[in-house]
Amino acid sequence: MLVNRRTLRIEWGQCDPAGIVFYPQYLMIFDSSTGWLFERTGLKPLEMRRKYRIVGMPIVEVGARFLKPCRFDDEVVVESEVGEWGRTSFTVRHRLLKGRELALEGFEKRVWAAAHPERAGEIQAQAIPAEIVACLSDPIGTTTVGSTPKV
Amino acid sequence: MLVNRRTLRIEWGQCDPAGIVFYPQYLMIFDSSTGWLFERTGLKPLEMRRKYRIVGMPIVEVGARFLKPCRFDDEVVVESEVGEWGRTSFTVRHRLLKGRELALEGFEKRVWAAAHPERAGEIQAQAIPAEIVACLSDPIGTTTVGSTPKV
Amino acid sequence: MLVNRRTLRIEWGQCDPAGIVFYPQYLMIFDSSTGWLFERTGLKPLEMRRKYRIVGMPIVEVGARFLKPCRFDDEVVVESEVGEWGRTSFTVRHRLLKGRELALEGFEKRVWAAAHPERAGEIQAQAIPAEIVACLSDPIGTTTVGSTPKV
Amino acid sequence: MLVNRRTLRIEWGQCDPAGIVFYPQYLMIFDSSTGWLFERTGLKPLEMRRKYRIVGMPIVEVGARFLKPCRFDDEVVVESEVGEWGRTSFTVRHRLLKGRELALEGFEKRVWAAAHPERAGEIQAQAIPAEIVACLSDPIGTTTVGSTPKV
Repeated sequence: MLVNRRTLRIEWGQCDPAGIVFYPQYLMIFDSSTGWLFERTGLKPLEMRRKYRIVGMPIVEVGARFLKPCRFDDEVVVESEVGEWGRTSFTVRHRLLKGRELALEGFEKRVWAAAHPERAGEIQAQAIPAEIVACLSDPIGTTTVGSTPKV
Repeated sequence: MLVNRRTLRIEWGQCDPAGIVFYPQYLMIFDSSTGWLFERTGLKPLEMRRKYRIVGMPIVEVGARFLKPCRFDDEVVVESEVGEWGRTSFTVRHRLLKGRELALEGFEKRVWAAAHPERAGEIQAQAIPAEIVACLSDPIGTTTVGSTPKV
Repeated sequence: MLVNRRTLRIEWGQCDPAGIVFYPQYLMIFDSSTGWLFERTGLKPLEMRRKYRIVGMPIVEVGARFLKPCRFDDEVVVESEVGEWGRTSFTVRHRLLKGRELALEGFEKRVWAAAHPERAGEIQAQAIPAEIVACLSDPIGTTTVGSTPKV
Repeated sequence: MLVNRRTLRIEWGQCDPAGIVFYPQYLMIFDSSTGWLFERTGLKPLEMRRKYRIVGMPIVEVGARFLKPCRFDDEVVVESEVGEWGRTSFTVRHRLLKGRELALEGFEKRVWAAAHPERAGEIQAQAIPAEIVACLSDPIGTTTVGSTPKV
């Protein structure tokens, strides 16, 4: 699988009175990290929505295990990759590293979702396009759909 | 003017490593407090949007002065009222009290905005309905437009 | 087990451009709901820390399944209870209901943690006091440790 | 004055159901941007605290004017510089640009604060060190105090 890596600095406003990251903030990092992973297809989020007529990739399940606390000003690396492909859903696995230590790991299960053709305001899971699967399954990251690859 | 009062408890996740509220969190409190103030008209937010065909009340200016820090578990009272009515805009004044002490005060200037009749995605300021002004200018709070007054 | 119930209104700032709650916001709701559940012991958070010399109840694992989206202005009920007691850790189960529908369910696994007696900045798991277990295991909620029961 | 520039992408979780940035999120951007500006002194936040024995730079006033909405996936540039130096306080001015358009501008007034020598839990404003003023007043940004300049 293609692993996307981001380097982040823990911000003051992400930390709590114990001086460590307030845990829901990690889930916000997961959410944006999934966004950056999918940009490795060469499509920016809105381009992807337009091209495949999806409304997004709504979450159906999330989980995380917290191993080491992170503090204000820590530099951390987030590694994200698709862990499993279903027909209409997929799981993104995230690891957050502080130096060589694994600080936390988690996953998001999401659905490839279009607007429901008949029921307004509702969504409908759709088959994930083979080319998206191909891009994000390529460990080298050279397979792209769009013209604006982001490394 | 009608003053809306809310009692809140400062949450763990609103505080920073110095043990005090991370200041943007106060602006989130302003935003929801303006929402509760406008419910004193008897209209819930979505009812108000439908009735007057507005898209919302987008903010154009904000300001706040921080006098005393608030900490996790502090009980605070937020007092909100319209400070000034323009034709298409208005200012909401907020005070946050910790016991008898004023912890912070601030304002939000907002616009009464409808979708632009011609340019998609843009908004257009509109005259604030006189009945809305009447409700929120009534210090007793008995004047209402809708049928679901919230005290 | 004692079930703590809170009624909340979904706020504008908790929702995303799809018009539904941005999922990390639910974890913030879990965090504060666990706080309110533990106040049913009759001890406010800071009193509990002082009385038992703990630094808090840091999270070690979280999980959630999202079944129905919640939208701005939805009234929701959060039900929280201890699902399992370990010697030094426990699991809180949360359900978020929208009317009669289960919108999401999840859990937080947390540790009863004191400052490490020797290593500064580190924490040490400790046995959960029997009286705390007793309070939160009592389905009627009349067993309390402190003098300020909150219902 | 030294102007610090950061390029950011607006994230999904920063936007509201109107599809635009929820305004308190901009204040979070101000807060971290002030942090990055002060790193141009060559001192990371914790080094600065240790070196000058301060507890931080608590905010006393904030203000912002919103001119153009920003949307999910917009690339924006934040420009931050000290606008005014007092003896113990200073004002940071922030501008957020979307292409060539000014989307918002604002300021934060902050205090250079040490722990109060006698009253526990309180802070005391102190004179801002001349070398800090010198670093951040140098428009070229080559004057530094510490050894880890960050550009």
